[in-house]
Amino acid sequence: MLARRLTDLQAEMKRVKARVDDLILDRLLPKSSSIREVNLLYTMMRDYPMRQAKGMRPFLCVTTCKAAGGTEDDALLTAACVELFQNWILIHDDIEDGSELRRGEPALHMKYGEALALNAGDALHARTWEAILMNEKRLGLDRTFTVMKEFSHMVNETTEGQHMELGWVVGKRWDLTEKDYYEMCTRKTSWYTVASPCRLGAIVAGQGGDVLDKLREFGISLGIAFQIQDDSLNLAGDQKKYGKAKSDDILEGKRTLILLHLLGIASKSERDRVISIMNKKREAKSAADVSFVISLIDKYDVIGFARKRAAELMKEALMILNGIKWNGDRDAAEMLTSFAKFTVEREW
Amino acid sequence: MLARRLTDLQAEMKRVKARVDDLILDRLLPKSSSIREVNLLYTMMRDYPMRQAKGMRPFLCVTTCKAAGGTEDDALLTAACVELFQNWILIHDDIEDGSELRRGEPALHMKYGEALALNAGDALHARTWEAILMNEKRLGLDRTFTVMKEFSHMVNETTEGQHMELGWVVGKRWDLTEKDYYEMCTRKTSWYTVASPCRLGAIVAGQGGDVLDKLREFGISLGIAFQIQDDSLNLAGDQKKYGKAKSDDILEGKRTLILLHLLGIASKSERDRVISIMNKKREAKSAADVSFVISLIDKYDVIGFARKRAAELMKEALMILNGIKWNGDRDAAEMLTSFAKFTVEREW
Repeated sequence: MLARRLTDLQAEMKRVKARVDDLILDRLLPKSSSIREVNLLYTMMRDYPMRQAKGMRPFLCVTTCKAAGGTEDDALLTAACVELFQNWILIHDDIEDGSELRRGEPALHMKYGEALALNAGDALHARTWEAILMNEKRLGLDRTFTVMKEFSHMVNETTEGQHMELGWVVGKRWDLTEKDYYEMCTRKTSWYTVASPCRLGAIVAGQGGDVLDKLREFGISLGIAFQIQDDSLNLAGDQKKYGKAKSDDILEGKRTLILLHLLGIASKSERDRVISIMNKKREAKSAADVSFVISLIDKYDVIGFARKRAAELMKEALMILNGIKWNGDRDAAEMLTSFAKFTVEREW
Repeated sequence: MLARRLTDLQAEMKRVKARVDDLILDRLLPKSSSIREVNLLYTMMRDYPMRQAKGMRPFLCVTTCKAAGGTEDDALLTAACVELFQNWILIHDDIEDGSELRRGEPALHMKYGEALALNAGDALHARTWEAILMNEKRLGLDRTFTVMKEFSHMVNETTEGQHMELGWVVGKRWDLTEKDYYEMCTRKTSWYTVASPCRLGAIVAGQGGDVLDKLREFGISLGIAFQIQDDSLNLAGDQKKYGKAKSDDILEGKRTLILLHLLGIASKSERDRVISIMNKKREAKSAADVSFVISLIDKYDVIGFARKRAAELMKEALMILNGIKWNGDRDAAEMLTSFAKFTVEREW
C-alpha cells in the first residue's frame, strides 16, 4: 500500500516535471543568442534545469491548482516559474555555501568560475520574472498580479532565511535553540518549497483568504519536516540517491536541528570539541573531524530524534491539510496527502 | 554658459536623487526586521543606496517623463526602482570583478564577506520587483505591466553584457575589435544607464512606438559615450571625485575601448607585453605592470582618442534626441540635452 502510493506519487511528479521541463527548455530559456559570445550564458542558464531533479515544487503548484478547482494547463507556466526560481537560487546558494556538487554533478561555479555563475544566476532570476509576466494571456492581469505578489513575498522570505543561516556561520554563533532553527527554516525552506508552490496553485485556481492561510500553515510545518529529513539524509543517506556530497553540512558549518540538538545533550568537552571543529573553515576540517562529529551523532541517536521531529511536523501539516475543503479534483487532493508523507519517508 | 548649464543640471540631479532616496530609504527598504538576526540584511540592503551617487538614472526617468507630458510624481516610484536595480547589480558586479571600492568606500563584500553580500544583492533584486508592483495604484495594471516588461528587457540586456565582459577576461580573449566593445557596452551599460531609464519615463507618461524607438537609439549611443568617459576617468581622472580605485580596469583585465585601441596601434613587442600583463591575475599585477600600460596609453594619446570617440557618439545621440517631438515640459526636454553633454564633460 505504502509502496503503491509512493510509486504513484513519483510517477506523477515525474510526469509534471517533464511537462515543466519542456516548457522551460523549449520556450522560456533560449538555446542560444544572436551574439556568439553570449551563447555560453544560455548554456549556463540551461545547465541546472537540465539536471535530474525531483520536481516537487512544480508538482505541488499544479496539484494544488487541480485540487482547488483549476486545471493543470492554467498552472503550468507558474509551476515552471517556481522551478526557475529554484534553479537560480541554487546557483547562488552553491556559491555562498562553497558547495562542490549539485544533483550529482559539479556545481555551476565549479564548472565556469564564480563570476560567470553569479551572473548566470542573476540572468535566470530576471527570466523568472519575465516568465511570470507571460501568465497575462491565460490568467488575465489581476490574477497575474496576485501571482507576482506571492513570488515577491517568497523571494523575500527565502533571502531572509538564507541570511540567517549564513550569518550564523559567519558570526560563529552557537547560542541557538531549536526554535531559532525552526524560524530560519521557515524562511529558508518552507516558503519556497511548500507554502508558496501550493499557494500559487490555489491563486491560479482563483482561491483566496482562508485556503491561502491554511496552505501557509501547512507549508510551514511540512517545509520544516522536509528540511529536517534533508539534513538527516545529508549525514545518513545514500549519496548516490541523494545527489549532494555527503556530510557537506558539517563541512559548511550548518546549524542543523541535528547539530543544535547534539550540542544540547552532549557533555561539555564533547560540545566544546564539536564547536571548535564546526568553526573551522571548510578546507581546514579533516576527515577525522567529520568522523568525530558523526560518531557523536550516532552515540546519541540524534538522527533518530530528528526523524521523530520530522514525522511529528508532518502529522501537524496533515491535520491542517485535512481541514481544507477542496472543491476540485479529489485525486489531486489525495496526492497532496501522499506528498506530505513522502517528505519524511523519502531517501532522496 | 557651460558652467551655468552644468550647475543647473547638477542641482536638478541632486534634487531628484534626494526625493528618490527618501522614497527608497523611508518606504521601500525597511530599517529593520522583526527577526533580530535579519536586521543586518536590512542594513546591508540600505548600504549602497545611502552612499553618495550621481543619481543620473532616476533623473533621466523623471525628466523624460516630464518632457513626454507626464508628471514627476507619476515617475518617482519607477525612478526609485531604476536606482534600486543599479544598487543590487553593483553589489554583484563588485563581487564578480573583485572590486575593492565603491563610491569611495569599501565594496559591500569587503565589509561583510562574499556570501552575505551576494544574498543581500538577491534580496535587493527581489525588492526591486516588489517596488515596481506598487505602481499599480497610480498607473493602473496595464501601464505597470509595460513598465515591468521594460525592466525585464533591461535586466536581460545587462546580464548579457556583463557575461560578455567577464567571459572575455575568463577566456583570456584579446581577438576583439572596437565593434565588439560597442556591442558589449550597449548591453552592459547603455540599456540600464540611459535607454531604459528614459524609455521608462516615457512609458509612465503614456508614450509608445516612435518615441520609445528613438529613445532606444539615443540611449545606446549616449550609454557607450558614458562608458568610454568612465573608462577614461578610471585611468586619468581624479580619484577623489571619481570614487572608484584608480586603474582598477587594468587590475581587473577589462577590455576597454582604450585597451583595444592601444593594442591596435602599439608595436608587436609592446602589444605582447600588455597582453601578458593584462592576463595576469589581479594580485599578480605589480605597480610597474600598471605603470607600463599607462605609459603606453600616454605615449599613443589613447585617452585623447577615446574622448574624441565619446564626443562623436554624444553628438550622434543629440541628433536623435533633437528629432523627438516632445509634447510636455520644455525645460525638461532641454535638461536632457544638457545631460547628454554632461556625460562626456564630467570629471566624476
